[in-house]
Parts: sequence; structure tokens; C-alpha cells
Amino acid sequence: MSSPLFGETKMNRISILKKSAFQNSKNDFFLIFNTSNLTYFSGMSGATALLVPKKGESTLFVGAVNYEQAKAEVKGLTVQLLELGENLMEKIASEAASKNARFAVDTLPIESWRALAKAVGGEEKLEPQGNLIREIRMVKDPEEIGFVREACRLASVGMQVASELIKPGIKEKQAAAEIEYAMRKCGSDGTAFDTIIASGVSSAYPHGSCSDRTIQEGDLVVVDLGATYNFYRSDMTRTFTAGKPTEKQAKIYEAVKMAQEKAYQTIKAGILAKEVDLAARQAIEAAGFGEFFVHNLGHGVGIDIHEAPVLSRDSKDTLAAGMVVTDEPGIYLPGYGGVRIEDTVLVSEGGAEKLTVGPYNLASKR
Amino acid sequence: MSSPLFGETKMNRISILKKSAFQNSKNDFFLIFNTSNLTYFSGMSGATALLVPKKGESTLFVGAVNYEQAKAEVKGLTVQLLELGENLMEKIASEAASKNARFAVDTLPIESWRALAKAVGGEEKLEPQGNLIREIRMVKDPEEIGFVREACRLASVGMQVASELIKPGIKEKQAAAEIEYAMRKCGSDGTAFDTIIASGVSSAYPHGSCSDRTIQEGDLVVVDLGATYNFYRSDMTRTFTAGKPTEKQAKIYEAVKMAQEKAYQTIKAGILAKEVDLAARQAIEAAGFGEFFVHNLGHGVGIDIHEAPVLSRDSKDTLAAGMVVTDEPGIYLPGYGGVRIEDTVLVSEGGAEKLTVGPYNLASKR
Repeated sequence: MSSPLFGETKMNRISILKKSAFQNSKNDFFLIFNTSNLTYFSGMSGATALLVPKKGESTLFVGAVNYEQAKAEVKGLTVQLLELGENLMEKIASEAASKNARFAVDTLPIESWRALAKAVGGEEKLEPQGNLIREIRMVKDPEEIGFVREACRLASVGMQVASELIKPGIKEKQAAAEIEYAMRKCGSDGTAFDTIIASGVSSAYPHGSCSDRTIQEGDLVVVDLGATYNFYRSDMTRTFTAGKPTEKQAKIYEAVKMAQEKAYQTIKAGILAKEVDLAARQAIEAAGFGEFFVHNLGHGVGIDIHEAPVLSRDSKDTLAAGMVVTDEPGIYLPGYGGVRIEDTVLVSEGGAEKLTVGPYNLASKR
Repeated sequence: MSSPLFGETKMNRISILKKSAFQNSKNDFFLIFNTSNLTYFSGMSGATALLVPKKGESTLFVGAVNYEQAKAEVKGLTVQLLELGENLMEKIASEAASKNARFAVDTLPIESWRALAKAVGGEEKLEPQGNLIREIRMVKDPEEIGFVREACRLASVGMQVASELIKPGIKEKQAAAEIEYAMRKCGSDGTAFDTIIASGVSSAYPHGSCSDRTIQEGDLVVVDLGATYNFYRSDMTRTFTAGKPTEKQAKIYEAVKMAQEKAYQTIKAGILAKEVDLAARQAIEAAGFGEFFVHNLGHGVGIDIHEAPVLSRDSKDTLAAGMVVTDEPGIYLPGYGGVRIEDTVLVSEGGAEKLTVGPYNLASKR
């Protein structure tokens, strides 16, 4: 899972964290527990915690089950074995080696938070700072963009298969099996999330899942899929009809397609995320379906399938070059069916690039 | 995803929760936020929170994206729409409708905990009680056992394919593609976790992943896989040699196999989980490999791939009928390779039943 730039890139991420965490701050350490944050800074999965001091080398705490792998693969961090039964919070406190040390913490469940507070001498020594790493991870570096790009290429392969498969008579789960197999054979490390193939009335559920239902002539079929590559994910949706689209289906589809394109045209560094959402929302309202676009326009994609920024009506985020976001408007008519179209998009200075690529045909190829 | 017993079973789970949460307690409500706990009590994925009052019907809070699905599928709970931009914690506080209400909470990240505390009028109104649902979920009801059983059948299908595929010349990821495809075609909803196919020296990493490496003659190959069925998971490991096993490989293998069997023979309702761990650990120590068994013997399996109980040296859990646990000793020689053998096992009154089924041959069939 390592790249030639591996150690250097990860060190650079820690430098960025130190710069933003310790300037104008009373904290002496930054403590990381979230698994995706740990992967981001260590380049491996399975570490337990990362202690970043204001100055000097950071310590990665790793259980015995991942210790040998961490020693072999992780560069630029001191790897410390966390033995079976050892108390993590006390080990961290002893590593910090100062009774007056203050800690920023990315996130912790309340019970672990209290255990940490006890170990370091009180809750007043701790400050939750989840937002800081959210901000750092929001803008991808070239290595990350390369991985997301590959994950998006794999999603596009999967969608191509979907466009050939979706037809009356095939079961939703059967189609998912073929789609995932095709992505896997081309190099996917696995799905980015549970593949959604929602046909008929369940296509009106934005997160409708994937069942044993047999797709029927006339169904709308929402296919929402993604691949994972080197920890990075992709997200892509197309909607097909099983058979010739009806006039109503085509009308809904055109409204969503128009909204997706309008939003895409607005994406560039410097624009408010809520303005991108608004572009799609206004297009769908103009088509008369406003109340049926029941979710946000999009979200960031990276190590997590849903991460910052958020593209919603009330988002406070501003897009910047290097962000990777989804553009995914939808219209869902309860009891009838739904349409969603989604691409994963890379934000650049002057505009944007669609990383997922696939035709926007409503009728599946069959 | 629903079964005929669906609504009734979920109601029964809430009755059990009420009984154990509100007897001898000052709390008026139990608040659930953990996604697996929400699935356990609601039978769907994607709810945001569940408010269980001491008396009367519980309220499931669901965002717009999952609202129509929740209304159609969830039985026995009041489904409340959480609108875009609405403040969840304030909505919960207003639903509780009493300024003096006290809440037990399954788990929350520190920042959300503070937001909830603010909404309900102070941290002293809140009590973390994650352990309570851990205990309830530890013992599976018949519906759950049925789902786990099916997930285990699917894992066994995958392992059969693995035993035929693993040979010199095939890439780890290529084998994973075929294994996952076979499970999917037989009805799996997806993998239970990222499939591990770790060959050669990386088989000595217990959580070694699955890369583009081509399997070589003489390699040890650890295959750790699982399927998901109706939200429930399975977990199974076999280790194969690519080619004829060497004497050393066979010796390590026999030690692990013996340990797995010894532990299995101890499993029954009433035994301390640490005694089961000890049975395997002593067998591996007797074979001279004690220091190379670097992880716990096993863990519970259900909606989460790792859940209670824990089978470790310092576990405080006692096994009971209806628990589903893994029995997975391993020996890992850094720089050489490793062996792990794992089954998912159902605990019964007088003993145990292996739910994953597959031959224990070291040499792969080729």
C-alpha cells in the first residue's frame, strides 16, 4: 500500500498539522484517535492513537496485532507497541511525560474522553479540535488526488457494466455482484460503501439498498456505487430505466441532469459550497420538483466516503483547489420512483474536473 | 431487509432495554446514537437517533434522505423527520418535553455530548451507558442467529473457492475478487470486512491486507473473509500453502489447529471467556510458539464484525447460550510467515456449534 513518496508525504501532513495546531495555542500535544485520521497521518490502517508533540517526532501507538506491519511500513513516526491489556490513556500520559501538558484531541467517545481526562490529570487539560483535521483533510495533496482518481476510474468501470446489465429480469443483488466483480478485477480494493441498486418504488428512497427484487419492465433503477483504492474512495450514481422511458420518467430525468450540470458549471475555487447547492436546487425548483430534492447536493470524498466539505443550503464551507466533492442532485417521488445523477468532481482554480466518467443515458443499453 | 417477525422482534428488544435501563435508575429516557445500535433496535440502517422513554412508544429520528424508507419499513416506533439544517439535540430535548428529564446515552463523541448537554440543561442530566446495550446485543435472539448462520454459510462458500484458487501465480487481489464474487452470487449483501489474503512474509501480519502481490511457490497464505446478510456478519480464516507444506509450516499449522480445537472444546454457556482464550494459549505455548500468538483468541460477531464478548486473557465476560464468537488462534513469525485458523461459533447450553464450515487442510487443492 505504500508509494515512493510515502514517508515524505505523511511527514508533510504532520508539519501542516503542527503549524495549524500549535500556532496561537496553549496545547503541547495533538492527540489523534479517529481511524481515518490515523490512516491519513500514518499511511496504514489499524493504528490505535497518534501523539503529535509541538516539537520533535510523533509517536504512533499500535497493538500487537498490527505492530510488525507498522514497524515495516510506517516512516517518520516512532512506533510504540501497545501490549495486550495495557492502558492506552495511561501510556499516552506517561509518553507526554509532563504533568502540565495540555492536549488537543481530534475526537473521542465520551467514556474514552473521561478515561483520558483522568489519565492526564483533568478535563481542563483537554480541548476537542476535530475541526482542525477536517479542514486539513478537505484539501487533497497530489498523492491523494492520484488515489481518488484511480478509485473514480474503477467506479466508471463499474457503471459501464451497470449500464449494460440493468434490464427487466435481473435481480438487484445479481447486478451488484457483477458490478463489484468488474471493479475488483480492474484493481479495486473493495467497494467504497454498500452498493445501492434500488429499482421500482424503492428508487424513491435515496439510500434504498440492494435486495433480491427482480427488476421489472418500466422500473426506474438508481445505481450508486464506488470503489476504494489505497484507502481512497469514489462515489458515482446513474439512473436507468428498465425498458423505454416514459414521458414522466424522462421529464424527471432531464430536470436532475440539468440541475447536476448547472451545479457543475459553478464549481471552482473560491465559490461558497452553498451556492453550488443552490444552483442545483433552483434548477429543480424551476422544473417543479423542489420539494422532492430531499438531501444535500454533495459532500467531500477521500478516505471517508462522506467527509468535508458539505455542499448544502446552510454549508459554511468555501471550495478550494484540491477538494474532491460529489455533485448529486435527485428527485424522489414517494410511491413512484426516483432519479439521482452523481459524479465525483475535483475542484481546481478556474473550474472543476469530473473524475467519474460515464454516459448520461436514461435508457440502459440492452 | 425485513423478516416476518420484524416488528415484533424489534419491539421485544426495546422491552429488554427498558427493563434493564430503567429498573433501579433515575433516568427517564435512553438515547441511542451508535449506528449499529440503531440498526439493532430499528431494523434499518441510516436512522440518526432513537429516544426510548421509560413508558410509552419510542421515537426514531430520521433525516429526509431516509425518512420515506423508515416510514415504510419501521414498525412499532414513531418516526420523526429531522429536516435539513434542524438541530438534532434541541429536537430531542423538546421531544422529551421536561426540563428535569434525565437521559442515559449509549455513546457520543465529546463534541456532540457537549451539544446534547447544552440542549438538555447540563451534563449532570446525562449518563453514559454504552455497556448496557453491549450486554443486550451480546446474546443473539433466534432471528439474529438465523441471519448470522446464513452469513456463515456464505463465508464457507467463499472459503471453498479460496481453497481451490490459492496457488502459485495468482495475485492476492485476484483471488479476493473471485471469492467475493462467489459469496455475492450466493446471496451475500457484501463483505463483512475487507477480505485479507496475506501471502509470504506478509502472512506474518495478522491484519495483513490484500495487495497486487503474486503468490509464490512455498508461501503461507492466510485467507480471512466474511459475508454480510441482513446486517449480520461472519468471520472465517484458513491458511493454505501454495505448494507442498514444508516440515516447519506443517508444525506451525498443527500447533494452531490443536489450539483452535482445544479452545472449541471448552466453549459452552457458563465458561469464562478468558478460560477459552487460555485453552488455546496454553496449547500454543506447549508447542513452543507462545510469544508468537500476539492477539486475543476471539470476539463476538453480529451487526458489528467486532463486538462483545471479548475472548482474551483479561476478559471479564462469561459465555452464554446465544452468543456468537470467533475462535481464531494464530502464530506469526516475523520475516517468515504466519498461520491463523478461525471459525465463527454459536455458544449453546452444553457446548458449541461451528457456523462456518470448511476443511482444515493446509495444502490448497490445486
